[in-house]
Amino acid sequence: MSDSKNIAFLGLGVMGGPMAGHLLNAGHSITAYNRTAARAESWLKRFGTMGDARLADTPAEAARGADIVISCVGNDDDLAQVMRGPDGALGALAPGALVIDHTTVSARIARELAAECRAAGLEFVDAPVSGGQAGAESGKLSIMCGGTEAAMARAVPAMSAYGARIVHIGGAGAGQTAKMVNQICITGLMASLSEAVRFADAAGLDMDKVLEAVSGGAAQSWQMEHRWQTMAADEFDFGFAIDWMRKDLGYAIEEARTLGVSVPVTALVDQFYAEVQAMGGGRQDTSALIRRLPKGGAR
Amino acid sequence: MSDSKNIAFLGLGVMGGPMAGHLLNAGHSITAYNRTAARAESWLKRFGTMGDARLADTPAEAARGADIVISCVGNDDDLAQVMRGPDGALGALAPGALVIDHTTVSARIARELAAECRAAGLEFVDAPVSGGQAGAESGKLSIMCGGTEAAMARAVPAMSAYGARIVHIGGAGAGQTAKMVNQICITGLMASLSEAVRFADAAGLDMDKVLEAVSGGAAQSWQMEHRWQTMAADEFDFGFAIDWMRKDLGYAIEEARTLGVSVPVTALVDQFYAEVQAMGGGRQDTSALIRRLPKGGAR
Repeated sequence: MSDSKNIAFLGLGVMGGPMAGHLLNAGHSITAYNRTAARAESWLKRFGTMGDARLADTPAEAARGADIVISCVGNDDDLAQVMRGPDGALGALAPGALVIDHTTVSARIARELAAECRAAGLEFVDAPVSGGQAGAESGKLSIMCGGTEAAMARAVPAMSAYGARIVHIGGAGAGQTAKMVNQICITGLMASLSEAVRFADAAGLDMDKVLEAVSGGAAQSWQMEHRWQTMAADEFDFGFAIDWMRKDLGYAIEEARTLGVSVPVTALVDQFYAEVQAMGGGRQDTSALIRRLPKGGAR
Repeated sequence: MSDSKNIAFLGLGVMGGPMAGHLLNAGHSITAYNRTAARAESWLKRFGTMGDARLADTPAEAARGADIVISCVGNDDDLAQVMRGPDGALGALAPGALVIDHTTVSARIARELAAECRAAGLEFVDAPVSGGQAGAESGKLSIMCGGTEAAMARAVPAMSAYGARIVHIGGAGAGQTAKMVNQICITGLMASLSEAVRFADAAGLDMDKVLEAVSGGAAQSWQMEHRWQTMAADEFDFGFAIDWMRKDLGYAIEEARTLGVSVPVTALVDQFYAEVQAMGGGRQDTSALIRRLPKGGAR
């Protein structure tokens, strides 16, 4: 394959693992690193036979000689750890290499890393994803990108291995701020959906019939279509974890403060999520927001 | 037409007017009443040539001899006025007639009217609609219904003239509570969408690209698809008026109190809407909620 690249992949979690697998499948050579070595070993066992794959002990070792470094880790601190310092990837790259970060992090660190890369003759794209574990497994993620046109032209062919919708939003940090827009939209939507489910249940309505009636119009949402029935059935052990949502909302609220934008409902629902974490729901889907609302029953 | 009925239609506003027109077009005989006579005259001018149409001076006069009375007025008080008392429709109907109310009103008055009809040998269906003026004009409304199976069996053939999705939710009042579910879902959704638009704009993002990136996933909603661009452009003079939304939310919050259900975000956004009314936005689309959020610009 003529456009096959040497790619260092950092972070083999539920998202990064299958994404790196899709890259292998597309013909790229992968040198993979994961902080927990056991997870790296099991990744190699699952995907290694698909193509040219090997493991590295540090991000720097993975990055040496790579055309592209791709990271998909947890948060700002994790990203700083795999990129910066003596064991970090950035110091091991030759000028001209491309860095793509798929972690949802702050816009601040995305802009910092873009500047650090530019100073070192590297290119950087901040590229948080949406679509969850299912999207990573099926290779149909949405990817929101910030970076230069030149960096995007090189990043898109690689990201196409797992991205169904790749949008170049703007310059450095724009991918992260677009992802924040996504999470902000979900907060109030999920709060009112929770209230609606409790209300309908307390009113004794047939939940399937209500869904049928309201899902065709102005109240429709992806969350309504995919979560109404599970919320009504108290099922939350799947999907996108509240712990991760709170991490994302922390960055979004920080950025709103920087921008001078008021986000009262986002901030309120972030606090509501803290209540659900305190109830032990941190690993549950964001739809577990409904758990903090008592079930009605005055009638 | 064998199933042609004598129908009294009460309320020829932006919703009721075209709905009554669709009934005429389907072959029914219409005797129409509107509180403001001038509006009734212009309705007759627009639709009268379509079929057998005439006007009445009072709801009672319209209802005399009717098989079905259909109302589409403003609120609880308006509905009580056209139904009850010496000039009201109920007293003029012969036993066996059917009453269908399309107004969005309280569940309380819907249950009361159902009981009054039952006592008089009449049938009653509470049937609020969604789909707005466009849905009324095109005859593609969603209709949420509360009533008996027998009443529904008679109501559906008539409502099919303008209803694309007709769902029998449950007994008396269930149509109204389902409509409340619809409005509750919109409140927080619109609040977070407003914050997201302000955030994206202050961050300097390309609004069309952000929409493209976030509208395919977990943040998607009908409001996002239909209002994101108009909100970004400060365009609000169309759609579903905030004054009407506040009327609906008043009934929803009253019913939540009756049910013993907590609806904190619904109640908060209702207050936010009061702020937009105070800014002169009462006749604007519900997406004008964004007007209360100052535009950012610290960066």
